[in-house]
Amino acid sequence: MSGTSPRTALLDREALHASLQDPVLESIGFLNEIMSRYPDAVSFAPGAPHPDPYAELDTTRYLDRFVSHVAAAPGSTRETAARLLYEYGPARGIVNTVVAEALRRDQGIDADPDSLVITVGAQEAMFLTVRALIATERDLLAVAEPCFVGITSAAALLGAGVVPVPEDRDGLDVDALAEACRAARRTGRRIRACYVAPDYANPSGSRMERGRRLRLLALAEREDFLVLEDNAYGFTAVPGTELPALKALDTTRRVVHIGTFAKVCFPGARVGYVVADQSVRTAGGVVPLAAELARLKTAVTVNTSPVCQALIAGMLLEHGGSLAEPIRTRSALYRRNLTHLLRALERESADGLPEGVRWNRPGGGFFVLMRLPVPADEALLEVAAAEYGVLWTPMAPFHPGGGGTHSLRLSCSYLDPDRIDEGVRRLVAFLRARAQGRPGTGTPAFEEGVRR
Amino acid sequence: MSGTSPRTALLDREALHASLQDPVLESIGFLNEIMSRYPDAVSFAPGAPHPDPYAELDTTRYLDRFVSHVAAAPGSTRETAARLLYEYGPARGIVNTVVAEALRRDQGIDADPDSLVITVGAQEAMFLTVRALIATERDLLAVAEPCFVGITSAAALLGAGVVPVPEDRDGLDVDALAEACRAARRTGRRIRACYVAPDYANPSGSRMERGRRLRLLALAEREDFLVLEDNAYGFTAVPGTELPALKALDTTRRVVHIGTFAKVCFPGARVGYVVADQSVRTAGGVVPLAAELARLKTAVTVNTSPVCQALIAGMLLEHGGSLAEPIRTRSALYRRNLTHLLRALERESADGLPEGVRWNRPGGGFFVLMRLPVPADEALLEVAAAEYGVLWTPMAPFHPGGGGTHSLRLSCSYLDPDRIDEGVRRLVAFLRARAQGRPGTGTPAFEEGVRR
Repeated sequence: MSGTSPRTALLDREALHASLQDPVLESIGFLNEIMSRYPDAVSFAPGAPHPDPYAELDTTRYLDRFVSHVAAAPGSTRETAARLLYEYGPARGIVNTVVAEALRRDQGIDADPDSLVITVGAQEAMFLTVRALIATERDLLAVAEPCFVGITSAAALLGAGVVPVPEDRDGLDVDALAEACRAARRTGRRIRACYVAPDYANPSGSRMERGRRLRLLALAEREDFLVLEDNAYGFTAVPGTELPALKALDTTRRVVHIGTFAKVCFPGARVGYVVADQSVRTAGGVVPLAAELARLKTAVTVNTSPVCQALIAGMLLEHGGSLAEPIRTRSALYRRNLTHLLRALERESADGLPEGVRWNRPGGGFFVLMRLPVPADEALLEVAAAEYGVLWTPMAPFHPGGGGTHSLRLSCSYLDPDRIDEGVRRLVAFLRARAQGRPGTGTPAFEEGVRR
Repeated sequence: MSGTSPRTALLDREALHASLQDPVLESIGFLNEIMSRYPDAVSFAPGAPHPDPYAELDTTRYLDRFVSHVAAAPGSTRETAARLLYEYGPARGIVNTVVAEALRRDQGIDADPDSLVITVGAQEAMFLTVRALIATERDLLAVAEPCFVGITSAAALLGAGVVPVPEDRDGLDVDALAEACRAARRTGRRIRACYVAPDYANPSGSRMERGRRLRLLALAEREDFLVLEDNAYGFTAVPGTELPALKALDTTRRVVHIGTFAKVCFPGARVGYVVADQSVRTAGGVVPLAAELARLKTAVTVNTSPVCQALIAGMLLEHGGSLAEPIRTRSALYRRNLTHLLRALERESADGLPEGVRWNRPGGGFFVLMRLPVPADEALLEVAAAEYGVLWTPMAPFHPGGGGTHSLRLSCSYLDPDRIDEGVRRLVAFLRARAQGRPGTGTPAFEEGVRR
């Protein structure tokens, strides 16, 4: 608000909260804007689910199923059950029992419904958890790097200090995390929590092997921090090769488990959840951390729409209380797309690519990371969009510690195979023309999470 | 997390974020807990809408109506329109045009759809606006006192400084606000925004008269702050006596207007909105403040469920793009209840009440404030619940500046007249037995917003 315009309020972005100038939130604005300017481009940018399964969804049936389920309980009628959809409801949620049962059956996670909060997507779950745990300037949030921007943007909004910890081929580098804990202690601070997506992380596609999972839990115990586990992509594993969630291995309640129904059900429900079964000592007795998160939620969104909760619970009930069957079909679809993308990259680049162009080959998830010998920044993205009709996501915002300047992410989740083929042809043409490193400068240092 | 329990994480509330110890968030936990312990009590505590109108609602019809509306646009089909419900969507919302049209018709507010963000209830709208504007420790949020806890709890979560400004019979005391601006300046700080509910505020029921509204806008211009207008209860005015919203009087874009569909449609949709048409100067050009709020939203909830947005837009479209008719019926219902509560208080107390028991008589809204000669605290509420079967809301958490210790709020919105009668009988019995001031101590100083 300055004096330049006496008749209408004119604000400077610099005078608004600093998170609005954070590279993470800046990049979101840019990506949305460029996608709207190039609607005909093949976009490898957004990690949205594939729309094919939407054709089978039936909101009326799911709502009806949930209402019938509630109405069958003693003392309930169809009328009182239907009313639940329209009313406010408890901040913790109204479908906790149904979700807890699915977690037990589908993921081997044994969660008391009272230790669950149903949230507006996994994003709100991350937001609330960071708010609860990163209490003062002394507290730090460690994050696997490269890192999903959802967690770092939440931290930015809350002014929470973030410490990046590198990943290698087998996931988060636990030794580096141990060193980060020691380094924090030396400066009078502490790692209070560590965010990690152990299964096919966004964006690196890395997967934490079993021994690494156990070492992380042991370190959490030793260094007294909590692990924030984001489980968005675990369902894309080849059937039979799934690894246990950190929460399923967690015997000492060190893991806060965050999940979403966006990928297996549908994102429009905006329903996620957090399992927070840690004990919190209060003047009035011990409560689960979930109860504290629910109180924080009253100040953010009050409660998650009961209509949305009913849609998800109804879908779960329609599938016998488990998502095993939708997981099977969705997972096959995403593996098909990932394989298709990797094969197309191989095929279209058979005649060679500029030196230093490399990509990884994750075993699941929605994403492929690619490294270029030139900066993969917004200026280059503008060229790719305008001249080659192909979009991707620059990776610098996914690197809170800096770096990632020469990396881009290709998402294959919501495209059909023919669009993937077309997109890869455009991408390869773009790379051949515009990803030539300057002679003599070589390629940038190897970045973790991108390997060939 | 301490060393007392080596095998499971045990956290102390004191080591979590300070907002969890804020009286506002503490009180929410207590109220929920006591309501669950006394399910047979007549509860004047929650300000929930009356359930009667829910019987007329039809989620299937509303969703269908919205899909048809979208499908009728050039280039759309029913299939692409239906898909909108299942997908992510823009953070700003997908029903902005429908909502903007209703604002124009129902409230005389002329808002560009681009200056709107559709939020998860009014709560998220308040949360995002406070986050954007209270950027540093220098910035302060002024609030009318007594004050809806939604805004102060959001401020607590964000660590935003709050300055209470008293209300009198005609609403916010603009002279006191001017003095607060000067006082802030003397300490190197500034009032960046002022939250006010000009129509039948929660909890005071006060209404800002027209001249006061204009003086507030002039002060905002002179002192360079924004007004956050919360318009939840304006619809309860006697038809023909409505006053223009601050936003409808706002010629210099000083007002950020926050609204909800919880009261006129239904709370379970969790749909609210914010009109933020202020200009923000960025490196890339001028954008509406709404665009900045939408970017912040990506870090909190990503986007408001398109299913929920479609329910509300569908309901709006079913009513010809205006809520005039549902406003008429709901408004009559709430006026009936308020009149009934005030008459019951009058009737049941005809034989006298302890000296110093007083209440106000608001002209609209959901609430009556009552002052007692004894502290109306949680201990007294426990007595009222256990021995008299009646619940109310202690007002101290609604007074960020302290005070309110001897006040309680009675909500009549969701009760039927016979329950109001029964509740008032119980309340009066409780008051006669337990609200006797100690002889000689007199009654506490008069509190603004409570008058007879």
